[in-house]
Amino acid sequence: MSDTPSGALPPKAPRTERGRRTLRKLLDAAALEFGEKGFHEASITAITRRAGTALGSFYTYFDSKDEIFRALVDDLSSKVREAARNARQQDVPALETERASLAGFLRFASEHKEIYRIIDEAEFVDPESFRLHYHNTARRIHERLAEGIRKGELREDLGEAHAWAIMGMNVFLGLRYAVWSEDASADDVAELANSILREGIARR
Amino acid sequence: MSDTPSGALPPKAPRTERGRRTLRKLLDAAALEFGEKGFHEASITAITRRAGTALGSFYTYFDSKDEIFRALVDDLSSKVREAARNARQQDVPALETERASLAGFLRFASEHKEIYRIIDEAEFVDPESFRLHYHNTARRIHERLAEGIRKGELREDLGEAHAWAIMGMNVFLGLRYAVWSEDASADDVAELANSILREGIARR
Repeated sequence: MSDTPSGALPPKAPRTERGRRTLRKLLDAAALEFGEKGFHEASITAITRRAGTALGSFYTYFDSKDEIFRALVDDLSSKVREAARNARQQDVPALETERASLAGFLRFASEHKEIYRIIDEAEFVDPESFRLHYHNTARRIHERLAEGIRKGELREDLGEAHAWAIMGMNVFLGLRYAVWSEDASADDVAELANSILREGIARR
Repeated sequence: MSDTPSGALPPKAPRTERGRRTLRKLLDAAALEFGEKGFHEASITAITRRAGTALGSFYTYFDSKDEIFRALVDDLSSKVREAARNARQQDVPALETERASLAGFLRFASEHKEIYRIIDEAEFVDPESFRLHYHNTARRIHERLAEGIRKGELREDLGEAHAWAIMGMNVFLGLRYAVWSEDASADDVAELANSILREGIARR
């Protein structure tokens, strides 16, 4: 459905700093509106009301509710990527990169609990965005694994499926420990998931 | 929303073998209808048409579309449990139990691709059923891990979060390799996920 590359601005990109701020307000308002009400109950007027912008501003950037929803999924997907990226340091061991990425994602998810509902609803509202989010996320993990192999730190047989397995761990730990309940800290949960990647679950 | 214990029959349980067959037909028809059309577009008359039953039969067992949807999620949750259980043998090592359970689940998911869409849609249509499905699934994995610890095969520090991590791996591998594309066999994917549980991803 969308042929916008992940992370790109929507088709009608703002040309001014003021325009960029308005677009940002609209996307943040859309995250709250779609997160609280779901796609079908959400409305464009409620989004502009939350954003404190005129209705005309909405149509400067988006043609429809579908279009801002798609832009929002893309925006959240980029934020998930940034949250994971900003949490890790350069030149650390590959396993530490995975631990820090997960901790960063868990902190982001606990502060933006609406992301699960929005991305999950994309499976029904905009299936292409849903697939794109997970394919892009898995691809980034796969690239990190490949880098770890190049550095001689990770098993040489790791591939795409291992990346999907790690992504699945991360997504469900986020659902359970960042969105549904916060009875364990992001660092504790990330450490415990990392222990599976370090040594598996067998007794030594 | 639902206070039906997982795996229990819906409130109006059939008393005869014929009634059980009718209920089974209705649930199987509902899986196809909800899986193809989604909850909102699905209709009770289309379900009875697919089932080859009279409309009256539907109301013998269910009061509404919501009620059969809830019963269906519970039914699919039980089938996922059975598919994993039937795939494993008694008295095998704990890690082999996880491998066989995942292979069984992947085969089931590839034959019933609609389960993802239906269970995922429950997040919006019947959130309590959605949570119950994952809490029950994680609890079963946690129980298997506890059994592996008792037998001295698994790390003694494994707990609920490890069960959620394993469930997440399994769910996303199913989405990628059983539902979206079948470019790897259930046995190959299960083996590769199992290698993470056996030894982690670090180079030895």
